[in-house]
Amino acid sequence: MPAIAAHDVTDRLAELARFTGRGAGVTRLVYDEAWCAAHRWLASEARAMGLAATADWAGNLYLHDPAVKPGHAAPPVLMVGSHLDSVKHGGRLDGAYGTIAGLLVAHASRGMAGLPVVGFVSSEEEGSRFHGGMMGARSMLGMVDERELDTVADREGITWRDALEDARARGCAAALPRAPFAPLFRPAIELELHIEQGPVLEAEGLALAIVDRIAGYRHWTAWIEGEARHAGTTPMRLRHDALAAAGEMILAAEHAAGEAGEPAVATVGFARPSPGLFNVVPGTCELWLECRHVRGDDLEALADAVTRRWREVAQRRGVRLGLEEGPGQPPTALSAALADAATDLAREMRLAHRRMASGAGHDTTVFAQAGVPTLMAFVPSRAGVSHSPDEATDDDHLVTGVQFLAALTRRLAEHTPR
Amino acid sequence: MPAIAAHDVTDRLAELARFTGRGAGVTRLVYDEAWCAAHRWLASEARAMGLAATADWAGNLYLHDPAVKPGHAAPPVLMVGSHLDSVKHGGRLDGAYGTIAGLLVAHASRGMAGLPVVGFVSSEEEGSRFHGGMMGARSMLGMVDERELDTVADREGITWRDALEDARARGCAAALPRAPFAPLFRPAIELELHIEQGPVLEAEGLALAIVDRIAGYRHWTAWIEGEARHAGTTPMRLRHDALAAAGEMILAAEHAAGEAGEPAVATVGFARPSPGLFNVVPGTCELWLECRHVRGDDLEALADAVTRRWREVAQRRGVRLGLEEGPGQPPTALSAALADAATDLAREMRLAHRRMASGAGHDTTVFAQAGVPTLMAFVPSRAGVSHSPDEATDDDHLVTGVQFLAALTRRLAEHTPR
Repeated sequence: MPAIAAHDVTDRLAELARFTGRGAGVTRLVYDEAWCAAHRWLASEARAMGLAATADWAGNLYLHDPAVKPGHAAPPVLMVGSHLDSVKHGGRLDGAYGTIAGLLVAHASRGMAGLPVVGFVSSEEEGSRFHGGMMGARSMLGMVDERELDTVADREGITWRDALEDARARGCAAALPRAPFAPLFRPAIELELHIEQGPVLEAEGLALAIVDRIAGYRHWTAWIEGEARHAGTTPMRLRHDALAAAGEMILAAEHAAGEAGEPAVATVGFARPSPGLFNVVPGTCELWLECRHVRGDDLEALADAVTRRWREVAQRRGVRLGLEEGPGQPPTALSAALADAATDLAREMRLAHRRMASGAGHDTTVFAQAGVPTLMAFVPSRAGVSHSPDEATDDDHLVTGVQFLAALTRRLAEHTPR
Repeated sequence: MPAIAAHDVTDRLAELARFTGRGAGVTRLVYDEAWCAAHRWLASEARAMGLAATADWAGNLYLHDPAVKPGHAAPPVLMVGSHLDSVKHGGRLDGAYGTIAGLLVAHASRGMAGLPVVGFVSSEEEGSRFHGGMMGARSMLGMVDERELDTVADREGITWRDALEDARARGCAAALPRAPFAPLFRPAIELELHIEQGPVLEAEGLALAIVDRIAGYRHWTAWIEGEARHAGTTPMRLRHDALAAAGEMILAAEHAAGEAGEPAVATVGFARPSPGLFNVVPGTCELWLECRHVRGDDLEALADAVTRRWREVAQRRGVRLGLEEGPGQPPTALSAALADAATDLAREMRLAHRRMASGAGHDTTVFAQAGVPTLMAFVPSRAGVSHSPDEATDDDHLVTGVQFLAALTRRLAEHTPR
């Protein structure tokens, strides 16, 4: 197995970061110009390294031994990679790091015994252009209904179908097959290397996390209705202030998550009081609440604790509370066996590591929910910053992460019967 | 003195409410079509009752015995009235009630011994078209600098000078005199009858408040700066959540006002967290704070208590807090002697009453700050609602208020040497 050198990782990450739209950081929305340029560059890099680069109809890219032919006759494979798209003005590592890792590991694994290794570059994960829900990973797994091509559209009304036509014109997607859309490869194992996007590894001085669970989340929009009154003439004791009630609810959510203990989190990310003037007691306030946890029953308990407290606050303050739940995502367990194997390897490699749950969703969520044995690994994020131009990870950590992934891939591929 | 009958009050209030712009409630912005129509109607009502109706250059209207000539030779007068303008979609009583009361009391007082009584209808008090700061009362008192005519403009860029030209064309303002702009009448006493705009009289089952102070206020815009982080990957203990800090500050303001005791009030009327998404811990939050109190040192103590607590919250949570103070208004004491006289009269008339401070500013604030002996009286507001189409007061209370004002005017006018 050829060694992966530091510059293999860092130089390619620097090159990939150059494919971006305008403004700070990296902006690569699926099928846009920067995304397509990055897609072509990754394919050419793979080909220069002797790999085949095959795009599917959705613009997912597979980097593989030319001897391993895609299609219904393809053998089960070990898939390793991440997504190519970014949020607007995001960082240079989120997704990108895993795709470069996939390329390098696929190259390093070529000709190995055991499962063939296929690097994957999923087309869409962030939801920053379409709100289709992990369209890339789902299309890799044959989990897309043809009707979605016309119902999923971006802010400007461009449908997924029309956007694909643009991507095909730029050489970044294959022709649309007949529905149902079958996968090009069948994953026996899926691995994804990612930056943590949180501060824990850095705070604990660790190099690596073995990620054995992905948190689920639930979202609510809350409507608080009190009484808009003149702020000068309404004594404190006679007020029904919707924003003061909101303040108490925000703190109650924070408190409930703290009481539940890690990895429970509860976040009020948005608040809009109305009428929003200096001299009027707010009559209404909208709040957005998110709860996350890594186990279904814990998520339910957290959600119950927060919403119960919110109702108590509303009752005590004489305001009305409406709670509308939006789409969520259940918690997802990754493969315990793969996590154990990875932990053994990390010990052998003397990497300072820990088990961790991912608070964020990833392509891997889709693979795991489809029944594929999956695992993720995280490297530290400086100051926990992600989805930001300031997203950064020390080079040492980036290189160690890829080397660990290569060794893990080799061990798993060799010990998994074809 | 002719008696004032119930229908004198209620019929005229109903008629005045018909002069309004589009939409719910009453919208009369100074010098607009509805305002001018109401102005002409009030003048014609006064003339029908045998009074003179004289407008000044700013569109203030004086309703007076034709024998009392305005101008520099006019005797000192007792002025009684309120403002004609409204907020957008306001109620039928705020200001309007005091102008009808002024008309009726001026009529009832005609020919009485003592100070001549002049009903006044101030052109602008609400700041709903221009942010000139009580332009009506200030122009009544000769407190306007000519330059303001060109610097004060509405949202559409129409200056006060141009708006006055429109009002003159509609017969609702006199020609602009040479600066400095001298008053038409010199008030020896000013009285204003108003709805409470708060819930206290109703809650206490009272008919009348003798208002001996007008609260001052201070305004701050606060900028809280924490750290915007992924809500899924950032543990509660490592967050610096600007909105959670804001929640604590909102409650701290409420608590500080409660501790200071009535009539202290503190209100956070506006909050804007950013970026405002479900899955991002808010990185910044803007808050608008208002503190009110009726005595200067108490207002300062309240403001100090709130801002000190806010700084403590910011320090404890590791967020930055910037506080920018905007224009405010100092508390204003009205005439203690007039308040005592009014209290004696309310007792004699067996009206259930109390002393009260006004939390809101009024035309009377300007008269008091100019050194004129002033007093206000309030009648109850149903449910404390004001600046709303739902603004309402029982007819009995409306009529009682005007009868009390007429009796008070008579007593004060007769006992004040000309």
